[in-house]
Amino acid sequence: MIQRRKFIKQAAFGAAAATVAAIGLPRILTREKKERLGVALVGLGYYSTDLLAPALQLTQNCYLAGIVTGSPEKAERWKKKYDIPDKNIYNYDNFDRIADNPDIDVVYVVLPPFLHKEYTVRAANAGKHVWCEKPMAMTAAECEAMIQACAANKVKLAIGYRMQHEPNTQEIIGYGRNKTFGKIKLISVAAGYFDPRTGHWKQDRSKGGGAMFDMGVYSLNAARYVTGEEPVAVLAQEKTTRPEIYTKADETTIFQLEFPSGALANCATSLGMNVNYLYVTAEQGFYKLEPFQSYSGIQGESGKGKLNLKIPNQQAKQMDDDALAIMNNSPLIVPGEEGWRDIKVVEAIHLSATEGRRVAIS
Amino acid sequence: MIQRRKFIKQAAFGAAAATVAAIGLPRILTREKKERLGVALVGLGYYSTDLLAPALQLTQNCYLAGIVTGSPEKAERWKKKYDIPDKNIYNYDNFDRIADNPDIDVVYVVLPPFLHKEYTVRAANAGKHVWCEKPMAMTAAECEAMIQACAANKVKLAIGYRMQHEPNTQEIIGYGRNKTFGKIKLISVAAGYFDPRTGHWKQDRSKGGGAMFDMGVYSLNAARYVTGEEPVAVLAQEKTTRPEIYTKADETTIFQLEFPSGALANCATSLGMNVNYLYVTAEQGFYKLEPFQSYSGIQGESGKGKLNLKIPNQQAKQMDDDALAIMNNSPLIVPGEEGWRDIKVVEAIHLSATEGRRVAIS
Repeated sequence: MIQRRKFIKQAAFGAAAATVAAIGLPRILTREKKERLGVALVGLGYYSTDLLAPALQLTQNCYLAGIVTGSPEKAERWKKKYDIPDKNIYNYDNFDRIADNPDIDVVYVVLPPFLHKEYTVRAANAGKHVWCEKPMAMTAAECEAMIQACAANKVKLAIGYRMQHEPNTQEIIGYGRNKTFGKIKLISVAAGYFDPRTGHWKQDRSKGGGAMFDMGVYSLNAARYVTGEEPVAVLAQEKTTRPEIYTKADETTIFQLEFPSGALANCATSLGMNVNYLYVTAEQGFYKLEPFQSYSGIQGESGKGKLNLKIPNQQAKQMDDDALAIMNNSPLIVPGEEGWRDIKVVEAIHLSATEGRRVAIS
Repeated sequence: MIQRRKFIKQAAFGAAAATVAAIGLPRILTREKKERLGVALVGLGYYSTDLLAPALQLTQNCYLAGIVTGSPEKAERWKKKYDIPDKNIYNYDNFDRIADNPDIDVVYVVLPPFLHKEYTVRAANAGKHVWCEKPMAMTAAECEAMIQACAANKVKLAIGYRMQHEPNTQEIIGYGRNKTFGKIKLISVAAGYFDPRTGHWKQDRSKGGGAMFDMGVYSLNAARYVTGEEPVAVLAQEKTTRPEIYTKADETTIFQLEFPSGALANCATSLGMNVNYLYVTAEQGFYKLEPFQSYSGIQGESGKGKLNLKIPNQQAKQMDDDALAIMNNSPLIVPGEEGWRDIKVVEAIHLSATEGRRVAIS
């Protein structure tokens, strides 16, 4: 592994390398088969600390192999807690050297969204598979650059959406696909929580904050995964009940989606209220999940009865699914293209709210 | 009673009557006290036939005393079925003579909405209390004329909204008023049914048809009664999946409401799908009814538990409440002003949908 990496790095300066890059060696196929993939978490904030690292103690197909952090204090704490070797601990300056580390198969980008593109591209260029948290990036153009970087480097890119891996969600996705209750007519979905913080990046859209970026992608994503369709138009409004705090981002966005089949969605997202439901009205019945997006306790019902399938840990399931897809070179459940489709719609929602008009999505 | 009516009618041609009319004799107070009020149904379509007439067999405070119909065949059938005396059977030509009929205390207008104003005003001018089905009328101006006609004639005007009389609905209205779960943040409400008909007046907005007029007032009304507030702005879209049928009215309308407190509502209404829920997100919890608007089986839940209060018949409850308010000269639960407030918003919704922009409501 090291040999091959070194070859590529060195060859990158020569004409031969240009050919290799153009042909695009399928790195994934040339790697030795591993039992479990080594994952490096980039960004050790709340989500890495409280959710992903504990989940990586439960995973079967991957494990916490490394970390990337700008905080020496955090590095020390994580090193001790998770027994991480020094050679697998990076900071943002030496991050690119991860290319030479065979312990790290996957880089999981858990930074604020405005950094997703940079670190996804750098990880891809280092020859690592990338898992990237939601929202995928700031713009559809950034998403495209991320997808291209991963494709060019023959690495896989998965977006850290949990719900498509969650069994109750998979059940209702099946209802949509199979038209178990006929065609979908109306979706009502809302995802939000009351965020008491001020001055956090989540209150700054330029860093990827605001309700729509943070939680709205769940509402949007849900409307997309239950219909299996892409919205053709949006109509959105942004509102706030705390104008002194939400000066740089939306506290609440309410938006309507139109789908090619005629299905409509009434959506809401907020950092000003605790709300979490997905309600689908179809021709011959309804189905719903409530909560539909929380870290545990997803449940609901349909005309077929209660929905209450349980898994030990959503994040573990997501990472195990994604690790297995990488090891088997099989399709990811939520590839980068899914995040890109969401961000295209988020851009249209931001435009609609700004201009006060319906925005068609090409 | 007859004497007094005759006096007023005769006096109406003389100068003395002008004084009486100006002073405005409080008819309601001068009438003899009755045990039960006599109700005349105007318009013997489905709702009168299948819902109101049966309900009037269950009411304690009112009874089916008369009918107004343009169909001699229906007149005959109803006369036999409900033992209605000939003198209490009117057609649309002789309807105004109902003024002279002491058996009739209340005229219940159950005609298509484009006729509500005419028959409400005529009934008021005949000195009868008026119950008017929803939607109250075609325009806010019509509603105002109806309210004025009833005020001028010292008769009461109630709108035939059932839900405000329904105990589960009253329970959640109380949650809103008492802030049982804190301030309301978001309402998601949808009311609709699949209407297979074509060429019916419900597919013609000029007659009061279309989803917004027919079922949308329930969604709107619910958002208003749970918040206890009047919306300050709307943003709406009209959609159809059956363009060949819905050429003159909306099959589906989705609309957003903004309330002064900052509460928002995502609303839907449709004649193209069966849907019926009211979901309220408040600061410290949620409450919901599903169905929230059907003729029976209203139920739901809140943070306080299940909501499943039962009454024998919604229409009977509504009419008994309204009859009692008339007999006691106490406030109606849903006076004409309530219908007027809804129609003001419906006008704004129609305008918003037509012009594709947010419409503020003054």
